[in-house]
Amino acid sequence: MRRAILALPLLALAPAAHADEGMWTYNNFPAATVGKKYGFTPDAKWLDHVRLASARTGTGCSASFVSASGLVMTNHHCVHDCIEQLSTAQKDYVKSGFYAKTAGDEVKCSELEIDQLTEITDVTEKVTGATKGLEGKAFADAQKAIKSKLEKECSGGANEGVRCDVVNLYNGGRYDLYKYRRFHDVRLVFAPEFQIAFFGGDPDNFNFPRYDLDVSFVRVYEGGKPAAMDHYFKWSKKAAKEGDLTFTSGTPGRTSRLHTISKLETERDFRMPRVLMYLSEYRGQLTEFQHRGAEQKRFSNATLFYVENAVKAYRGRLFALNDKSFFSQKVGDENALRQKVLADPKMRAAYGGAWEAIEKAQYEYRAILDNYSYMEGNLGFRSELASFARTLVRAAEELPKPNEKRLREYTEAKLPALKQQLLTSAPIYDEFETFTLTFSLTKLREGLGADHPFVKKLFGKESPATLAARLIKGTTLKDIASRKALLEGGKKAVDASTDPLIELFRRLDGDQRAIRKRFEDNVEAVDTKNGELIAKARFEVYGTSIYPDATGSHRLSFGSIKGYVEDGKTVKPITTFAGAFDRHSGEDPFALPASWLAAKGKLDLSTPFNFASTNDIIGGNSGSPVFNKDAEIVGLIFDGNIQSLGGDYGFDPAVNRAVSVHSAALTEALSKIYGASRIVDELGK
Amino acid sequence: MRRAILALPLLALAPAAHADEGMWTYNNFPAATVGKKYGFTPDAKWLDHVRLASARTGTGCSASFVSASGLVMTNHHCVHDCIEQLSTAQKDYVKSGFYAKTAGDEVKCSELEIDQLTEITDVTEKVTGATKGLEGKAFADAQKAIKSKLEKECSGGANEGVRCDVVNLYNGGRYDLYKYRRFHDVRLVFAPEFQIAFFGGDPDNFNFPRYDLDVSFVRVYEGGKPAAMDHYFKWSKKAAKEGDLTFTSGTPGRTSRLHTISKLETERDFRMPRVLMYLSEYRGQLTEFQHRGAEQKRFSNATLFYVENAVKAYRGRLFALNDKSFFSQKVGDENALRQKVLADPKMRAAYGGAWEAIEKAQYEYRAILDNYSYMEGNLGFRSELASFARTLVRAAEELPKPNEKRLREYTEAKLPALKQQLLTSAPIYDEFETFTLTFSLTKLREGLGADHPFVKKLFGKESPATLAARLIKGTTLKDIASRKALLEGGKKAVDASTDPLIELFRRLDGDQRAIRKRFEDNVEAVDTKNGELIAKARFEVYGTSIYPDATGSHRLSFGSIKGYVEDGKTVKPITTFAGAFDRHSGEDPFALPASWLAAKGKLDLSTPFNFASTNDIIGGNSGSPVFNKDAEIVGLIFDGNIQSLGGDYGFDPAVNRAVSVHSAALTEALSKIYGASRIVDELGK
Repeated sequence: MRRAILALPLLALAPAAHADEGMWTYNNFPAATVGKKYGFTPDAKWLDHVRLASARTGTGCSASFVSASGLVMTNHHCVHDCIEQLSTAQKDYVKSGFYAKTAGDEVKCSELEIDQLTEITDVTEKVTGATKGLEGKAFADAQKAIKSKLEKECSGGANEGVRCDVVNLYNGGRYDLYKYRRFHDVRLVFAPEFQIAFFGGDPDNFNFPRYDLDVSFVRVYEGGKPAAMDHYFKWSKKAAKEGDLTFTSGTPGRTSRLHTISKLETERDFRMPRVLMYLSEYRGQLTEFQHRGAEQKRFSNATLFYVENAVKAYRGRLFALNDKSFFSQKVGDENALRQKVLADPKMRAAYGGAWEAIEKAQYEYRAILDNYSYMEGNLGFRSELASFARTLVRAAEELPKPNEKRLREYTEAKLPALKQQLLTSAPIYDEFETFTLTFSLTKLREGLGADHPFVKKLFGKESPATLAARLIKGTTLKDIASRKALLEGGKKAVDASTDPLIELFRRLDGDQRAIRKRFEDNVEAVDTKNGELIAKARFEVYGTSIYPDATGSHRLSFGSIKGYVEDGKTVKPITTFAGAFDRHSGEDPFALPASWLAAKGKLDLSTPFNFASTNDIIGGNSGSPVFNKDAEIVGLIFDGNIQSLGGDYGFDPAVNRAVSVHSAALTEALSKIYGASRIVDELGK
Repeated sequence: MRRAILALPLLALAPAAHADEGMWTYNNFPAATVGKKYGFTPDAKWLDHVRLASARTGTGCSASFVSASGLVMTNHHCVHDCIEQLSTAQKDYVKSGFYAKTAGDEVKCSELEIDQLTEITDVTEKVTGATKGLEGKAFADAQKAIKSKLEKECSGGANEGVRCDVVNLYNGGRYDLYKYRRFHDVRLVFAPEFQIAFFGGDPDNFNFPRYDLDVSFVRVYEGGKPAAMDHYFKWSKKAAKEGDLTFTSGTPGRTSRLHTISKLETERDFRMPRVLMYLSEYRGQLTEFQHRGAEQKRFSNATLFYVENAVKAYRGRLFALNDKSFFSQKVGDENALRQKVLADPKMRAAYGGAWEAIEKAQYEYRAILDNYSYMEGNLGFRSELASFARTLVRAAEELPKPNEKRLREYTEAKLPALKQQLLTSAPIYDEFETFTLTFSLTKLREGLGADHPFVKKLFGKESPATLAARLIKGTTLKDIASRKALLEGGKKAVDASTDPLIELFRRLDGDQRAIRKRFEDNVEAVDTKNGELIAKARFEVYGTSIYPDATGSHRLSFGSIKGYVEDGKTVKPITTFAGAFDRHSGEDPFALPASWLAAKGKLDLSTPFNFASTNDIIGGNSGSPVFNKDAEIVGLIFDGNIQSLGGDYGFDPAVNRAVSVHSAALTEALSKIYGASRIVDELGK
């Protein structure tokens, strides 16, 4: 449980590639370094192939194509929402697992999309050219406009089958346009029981050794038929073992390794303590909410799971930043770069003021943090129905505007995904909506204070519980047709609506936009503009053979299956089925499902189950394929060890480990426990 | 809501008494300073009188004697537990309030004790003499022994009517023996409805302006009759107003103004983030637990109240420490003292190594923090019944030992209080016990990890919920007679017991004692020993006219009724009844009770309700009397403003304010709303 991040060399800042660090872009992969260390040098064809065989999910996870007929592998926890949405009080697939015995049994996940990265174009000059010489609001507006323009041109407008994102790399050092083939008809094929997908539960989460079958298979469809894939990963012919070279491809969500000290201080001293208290309290309420009954337990499970995971991840990050010697080293590294910049008159003139400008913007951010988080961020209104209402109210304002003037999430290129989310057929539970909205409204009032003008406008004389109950009871937005009518009816329909949630967000929208604008113009724009300067300074000082911070875009990392030392003891890198049966106590979360207990006699208990590898990953890599130099699946990332949580700020090669399900465990379980021969055959195993 | 602690001058370190800072001991009160600033110089007789008219409660609060017949005034929240314990599903005094119309209606609070400080003796030489030249375990053992010896001599053994505590002042700079007259027959006389005692609830807690009637009256009895008091506070003849000199007397719980930087870093980076996450989650569970039903809500209210208050207080402290410029100033102050010590060869030899020694011990503390908090501290076993079991198991081991060899809480002088707690007749609710024990056991497993040897020993194959349910269902300790039998039966009875809780703590006691010993010998003893050195250094450099950190012992502070500026606006120091009716929304926690709404027409709405004053207070001062130079009650401390939370680390005279109920509000409400003429008459008003 102890982090050993103290001696972290912070290689991100230096160009020499040490160890197996780095979440590399496909167009700047250190192939030679890999070749030198591991004897295999990926070429362009190989890189293209593994990129096209990789995928991301709309839920912020990674995935991979594993057959020519659109079969996709990801984690159970990446499609947990869908599995829960397909379940009912009568049939709980989270509990029982799901297996489509025939193609006809595959069922649509209403909110899920899968994206394949088909093209990367460098648009740095276009983006930075559009904002040259601008600051604050003008900078923010111009950057927003050029991004929306480029994305619309790329996708050809609101095209359901294409998605385009301008991706910010090196905190503004480079902008690439990523074009995706977008699959929005995604169907569930297989998921095991939650009990084995998440064996060990929260206590074992982010721990190793581990014994989880955190897998699911879905399939992408086009025109009502399984999509044909030119590129996909084949299954490995032999089981990977300790020391083997492993690649992983996925969409790590965010790292802050290149962030300035003032930004890290905002995280450490302001944002994280608040978020951790908020999430911990929410966790407590959710845990006890599950006692309301079996059905309530069922429909709140995915949220509790998400919150517990977030608490553990944030805590790991806070503890990393609270590590005095680690933080001093980050300060030392920043000072070293600043000294080099100051020592050169040209660099000094061009970049010298960037750190202070960002620091000043951070003071502004800290001052508006509570207002922003509760009014406009995601802390104040936790409710599906409230989200629908806010989206509809804003869509009515935004969609009539020219594409480049809209709020970013309403631009043409984003509309297909927005509509899919808005018109989802996923079930909505009034009791749970009222519960989550009450909680978040209570926190909003607490965070802003009872005398805050926004609080008075929002509540009047009502309490959070009374207001939430009235809104959820009175709204018609549970009905898809009603949402569709408001979306298509536009501003006229929204203005005429007497739906209490629509009325509420009509009333609040001005205040919410105002705080967002303040954040975007005074914090975000300053940060981006000066981040570009610091990135340029870093390129000048250290060269361009460095990797950018994770931003949710596609990355490739390399490493090998390897143990580590923790509290003086060696942790071996591969666990087996036998270990899972040893750990089985019969009590949740350490209870193996009945299917496993029944199949025990048939199983090869020496089958490798989970493994640890040195691949540099972070949240968002969940569901990433792990493959060998022949681009064959050897595993499936589902977690990192506890030491990997500090990976947000730096990579410690001694102990930072990715945790995967071994490919042998997947086929052994599919065959012998689940009788899922249709999948095993399709995997070519 | 914004702290303005940045420019804090940290006067604690300098001898000159600025502003109204300081929680002063009675035997080192800066009478001349007060005289110079306010024109009134307290003399010895006055100081003796207000000390003897002051009191503390066994629940960690302050109180005062307000009649010759043992009437005691304190806060509602200081006797909330008792009011809840006297309530039943049929009659909820927390909700309805309580008023004993006749003397015969006064009801005993089974767990409450009230202490009057009768004598102070300097025992510094005895205590430091006993530990001279010792370190670690030897130091800890010797100090424990001398303290227990002095306390036993003072109290004359286990004397129910006397209590003696060796009080550590200036972090080891001085030891005083405090002798108390101890009242253990305490009866409830009056409490208003919770709704008005805590009007504004958690949202308004630690806020000002404020409108709370946070008062209760109890009475101390001796030999079955109201105790006769020679010293008590009279009621003020005229209402206190802005600018008036105010004193307050009470038992502030703890401040850390003299703590070393390494200790503050432990708080900021290790302990507080953990405690805040723990309490936030507990708060969430408790909030939702209240939905189980009206009765569950009733018996969990006091706990929820306590937890919410603690969350807000800890958060304020964390945010103060996270304030970079404030913390830099603390670092600067420590460095200044260290430089002065190092510059003088004699001081350098005597004190120079103290800071580093404490820092080293802090590393050890951080390493064992989770083990200590969960195994031996108060995070792992939150349950009355579990506490009884642990106390009984330990009493069986400790009581046969010589007084000086016992764990401190089992020494002769502490036994009366220990027995009162153990043999309480307060009701115990199985459902709530199971709930709180399940929560804390779950956190224990999470905090230590599922593979920790103590976790394995504690749980075996059981889950926290299963274990908690089995223990609470199976124990006989709900029965007072059963606890009494085990206490009196001693080791033989405890060893023979098959009670599942007794069996559990018999099994765990060795591990629990081991981690406590490690903490006491390696952390606490080093801290105390070197704290003594730093205190001496501080006396040598700055003189002795400084006040010690709060340690739960009796203190006197002075100040005046005064507003402050917040976010650019002036906050006036006195609110009125009219303001409470304005704030009334009809929805909890902003709903005035029916009694107030009914009486509105009779009330003088210009009556002063709450006031802010510059008195330097902290948690533990709740229930403190506020009095004028004639030792007349003008108010009743019940809170501090949000800016006072950083007061743990330093006092900011510009904005740090104590918050009190005005004496005029008390008599107006007692007379016109509650018809409590018996009390008003007794107060001599």
